[in-house]
Amino acid sequence: MTDLDFFFNPKTIAIIGASDTLRFGYTTTKYLLNSNFKTYPVHLSKPEILGHKAYKNIKDIPDEIELSIILVGNKHVPQAIRDSIDKGVNGIILESAGFAETGLDKNIKLQDEIIEIIKKSKTRVIGPNCVGISNFNNEFTSSEVQFNRVVKGDISIIAQSGVLGNVFIDWGSSQNIGFSKSITLGNKIDIDEIDMLEYLNDDPETKVITLYLEGTKRGKDLMEVLKKMTKPVLILKNGRSDIGSRAVKSHTSSIAGDDRIYDAMFKQHPGIFRVDNFYELFNIAHIFSSQILPKGKNIAIITGSGSLGILACDEIRKQGLSLAELSEESIQEIRNIIPDWVSIGGTIDLGPSQGYTLIPCLKVLFKDKNVNAIVFIFTVPRGPLEEFEGLEAGIKMSFRIINKLSKETNKPILCVSFGSRWVFEFIMNIASKFNIPVVDRIKHAIMAFKMMYEYNQYLKTKEI
Amino acid sequence: MTDLDFFFNPKTIAIIGASDTLRFGYTTTKYLLNSNFKTYPVHLSKPEILGHKAYKNIKDIPDEIELSIILVGNKHVPQAIRDSIDKGVNGIILESAGFAETGLDKNIKLQDEIIEIIKKSKTRVIGPNCVGISNFNNEFTSSEVQFNRVVKGDISIIAQSGVLGNVFIDWGSSQNIGFSKSITLGNKIDIDEIDMLEYLNDDPETKVITLYLEGTKRGKDLMEVLKKMTKPVLILKNGRSDIGSRAVKSHTSSIAGDDRIYDAMFKQHPGIFRVDNFYELFNIAHIFSSQILPKGKNIAIITGSGSLGILACDEIRKQGLSLAELSEESIQEIRNIIPDWVSIGGTIDLGPSQGYTLIPCLKVLFKDKNVNAIVFIFTVPRGPLEEFEGLEAGIKMSFRIINKLSKETNKPILCVSFGSRWVFEFIMNIASKFNIPVVDRIKHAIMAFKMMYEYNQYLKTKEI
Repeated sequence: MTDLDFFFNPKTIAIIGASDTLRFGYTTTKYLLNSNFKTYPVHLSKPEILGHKAYKNIKDIPDEIELSIILVGNKHVPQAIRDSIDKGVNGIILESAGFAETGLDKNIKLQDEIIEIIKKSKTRVIGPNCVGISNFNNEFTSSEVQFNRVVKGDISIIAQSGVLGNVFIDWGSSQNIGFSKSITLGNKIDIDEIDMLEYLNDDPETKVITLYLEGTKRGKDLMEVLKKMTKPVLILKNGRSDIGSRAVKSHTSSIAGDDRIYDAMFKQHPGIFRVDNFYELFNIAHIFSSQILPKGKNIAIITGSGSLGILACDEIRKQGLSLAELSEESIQEIRNIIPDWVSIGGTIDLGPSQGYTLIPCLKVLFKDKNVNAIVFIFTVPRGPLEEFEGLEAGIKMSFRIINKLSKETNKPILCVSFGSRWVFEFIMNIASKFNIPVVDRIKHAIMAFKMMYEYNQYLKTKEI
Repeated sequence: MTDLDFFFNPKTIAIIGASDTLRFGYTTTKYLLNSNFKTYPVHLSKPEILGHKAYKNIKDIPDEIELSIILVGNKHVPQAIRDSIDKGVNGIILESAGFAETGLDKNIKLQDEIIEIIKKSKTRVIGPNCVGISNFNNEFTSSEVQFNRVVKGDISIIAQSGVLGNVFIDWGSSQNIGFSKSITLGNKIDIDEIDMLEYLNDDPETKVITLYLEGTKRGKDLMEVLKKMTKPVLILKNGRSDIGSRAVKSHTSSIAGDDRIYDAMFKQHPGIFRVDNFYELFNIAHIFSSQILPKGKNIAIITGSGSLGILACDEIRKQGLSLAELSEESIQEIRNIIPDWVSIGGTIDLGPSQGYTLIPCLKVLFKDKNVNAIVFIFTVPRGPLEEFEGLEAGIKMSFRIINKLSKETNKPILCVSFGSRWVFEFIMNIASKFNIPVVDRIKHAIMAFKMMYEYNQYLKTKEI
């Protein structure tokens, strides 16, 4: 482990600018004061915050402090930093905004002043203009996370901004995507994506790393660290366009840079994958973290909907993969299972017969040597799912068998579900018990298998 | 109106192959027999179906029959068609599968046999291999629709296959997308997309038409009818790739054809827009049907998340639109409203200040002559939405004002929401009361405004 553990599992915490009114920082203050993390509120005027004795200055706290969380207005930040350094903290999470990202001279100067202060110390700083850290394993957070709703898992997130610190974790959890750690970096006056990539690469609780980047100040170091990564890294880099890049500047004062350079950098390193939006980022990470890597690029599609099967075919081609050509034997076996009005030209489109033909056909697909991975497109509407008794039990049993077949044959499978949220949750709740990810986009399913296949190829070259 | 009304509002119906057991057609049988639509079950052996007297043959029914719905096995279809024609029905919805789409000679011959039979009559036929018609206004359906869950609206759907007949309507309704009519065409031995485009273009209950196409048999006629359309048509055409096009053949026995020809055909006609997947199809139709057309291509972005604002900028550029350059006056007004740590370089990123700055800033945006349309990216997490009393009332009031401003200034606005389903539904339920669509993709919001701007330009040329 690197020496940044105090950010993720602080023994003692001070909150400078602790808030007991409904403003920024209130939720964090309330959560930490009521948590098992030893937390001291610091407030200029209030003697008590939410029932806890408050200190006028961090230096007044009669305890060693490992981590200081700073929430005060921008003008008060330099003093809060000096006090924290004097107190001897290991780390500072500086959440206050109002620095270089505003584009105003006085605020840029304020940021420079802080940089000068911390340069002279050994204290490490995350921020400013961020919501800091969440650790879903020990439930430490300097952000607004509802841990009772978060699914714990092995995907970690490095981001520049707050929206990933809570909004997208909220979304991910509602999709049964499991998270390990989340870091928002803000303006990055000290700690940046490179430090955190190194940390997470060594973190035993992290299997897949997702990085949302607006720009880096250390291009060469970023290239070096990406080269050394031993875990898959999915990257969302925005500010591709001129206006997007201008917006980056006013968001975290980053320089978006020439998008082609980033694109080339990411493409150069196997194991580094660029995606286009937050949904892709997390859906693909989800599949990466939960499924076996495909050993080849032949994808079989099985579905109750011909239309969606066709869209999947188009996507397979677009991603440079192949639709699995079944062996003559498999085709014959499937012909024996399904009614003659079912079509198996390309995709296996079971239509309304899927209730009794799905599992026998899947057995054939898993067994076929020409199949490397399977996408199951689930399209049963809400009506029958609600109405027909026994259907839920049948689907549960199917997923149990699917999971067993996947393990036995060492081939990945995933489920794409359409229809309403009710249907999605119905199938997700069943599938998640058997470790089968469910996503609502064919594109993400195929993209994930493509990246995972490439990652498998890359690992093979390393073995030699 | 054209003469196909009997498909959408049949005075009398016969169901040939009515089913009282849990197989294909059961839900339709049960629904229609219990509906206000005068429906007669036809069954070879059972004297009664779900408590209704059943007839051995449609010809035995002591009433005129306007529409016959055929659900029998493929071998029995020719006789059922002959009987229906003898009975003098105006239309047949032929749902049975097992014809040309299977690729088997005997089934192709069976389909040819039916074609010969209907050629000699005036009876119009939809199908085979489809789920027919749903009319969300009078609640007639030959498919499986739960009308109590469907949102009624003015978007109509022409599709080849069943997944649109229920699964995607289920999805759309859970997004508050309102539908008028849905038609699935299957193998199209008689009625095809051209007939239905003509019908819907004249239908006063349809404002936007969505078409899911696998291939047409009448390319020239399709071009002609598209030229004549006076309503916007959104088209999803799949089978773009070689393997996709092979799958099309085995799905509805259509010929996918050269994708470039279709692409050129759609691009040639203003008012015809091609999309890439079902979500785009319905989200964009939703925005089209509910919002004023933008008079220019300058889009303003207002959000609580800088990251998402940047992604929106990149998408605006990708779609060939412009980020609205605010007037000096507007910038000054906004500077007076927001705290100085809020950044307005490009997008208006209110950050945590949005609770009190959103509406004053929106007033400035709506008023600014350089702004033609507004995208509001909503990013409040679930925590505060649940915890803070008064927040819901505040948001409701905001949307009331937004709707008023939109009407007064004749400018469209829409909302993009991220976060969990809970958050999406929270904001959707409020926004829908004030006619503001909510989507979960920035891309769809920007695509919609682009198409709507182009449509507005097209309408202007027609006015001259």
